[in-house]
Amino acid sequence: MSQENAILIGKKPPMNYVLACLTAFHEGADEVVIKARGRPISTAVDVAEMVRRKFMPSASISEVTIGTEEIQLREGGVKRTSSITIKMRRKK
Amino acid sequence: MSQENAILIGKKPPMNYVLACLTAFHEGADEVVIKARGRPISTAVDVAEMVRRKFMPSASISEVTIGTEEIQLREGGVKRTSSITIKMRRKK
Repeated sequence: MSQENAILIGKKPPMNYVLACLTAFHEGADEVVIKARGRPISTAVDVAEMVRRKFMPSASISEVTIGTEEIQLREGGVKRTSSITIKMRRKK
Repeated sequence: MSQENAILIGKKPPMNYVLACLTAFHEGADEVVIKARGRPISTAVDVAEMVRRKFMPSASISEVTIGTEEIQLREGGVKRTSSITIKMRRKK
């Protein structure tokens, strides 16, 4: 399967996102992409580490990138937030 | 200069760490390593992005790695925390 499984991390408990990752892998995804903006960035790292260490040792982190996203505000102007993208792959 | 300039991100305002990075580069460092554990991980990403985008366009992010660190507790047992390491380099 080559579709991208993207999981956007928000304010829910980390285990919710861990389960979303595990479900995507169990449904046959080769790659799961974990994304976060702002404060939840640290949760994104927790989620990736929990998946890899506790639940799916066959999964590994293939790439981590950071960046800045610009959000257009309705009242005009732009707001910049840091972002992270963590790519996880399952070894065959 | 080949020494490693490591900056550990904590709970101070992000600008404190941005200044620490800029100072290290201005003192001749080719590489600055930004590290954080737990909640300040998102601040670490903010700091790297601010250095690169606002203050030093000649600096770029050369590597981002995430991991888990184990801290031995005095009362016995271990505590695990997620960590991030962001390497920044200055283009010559």
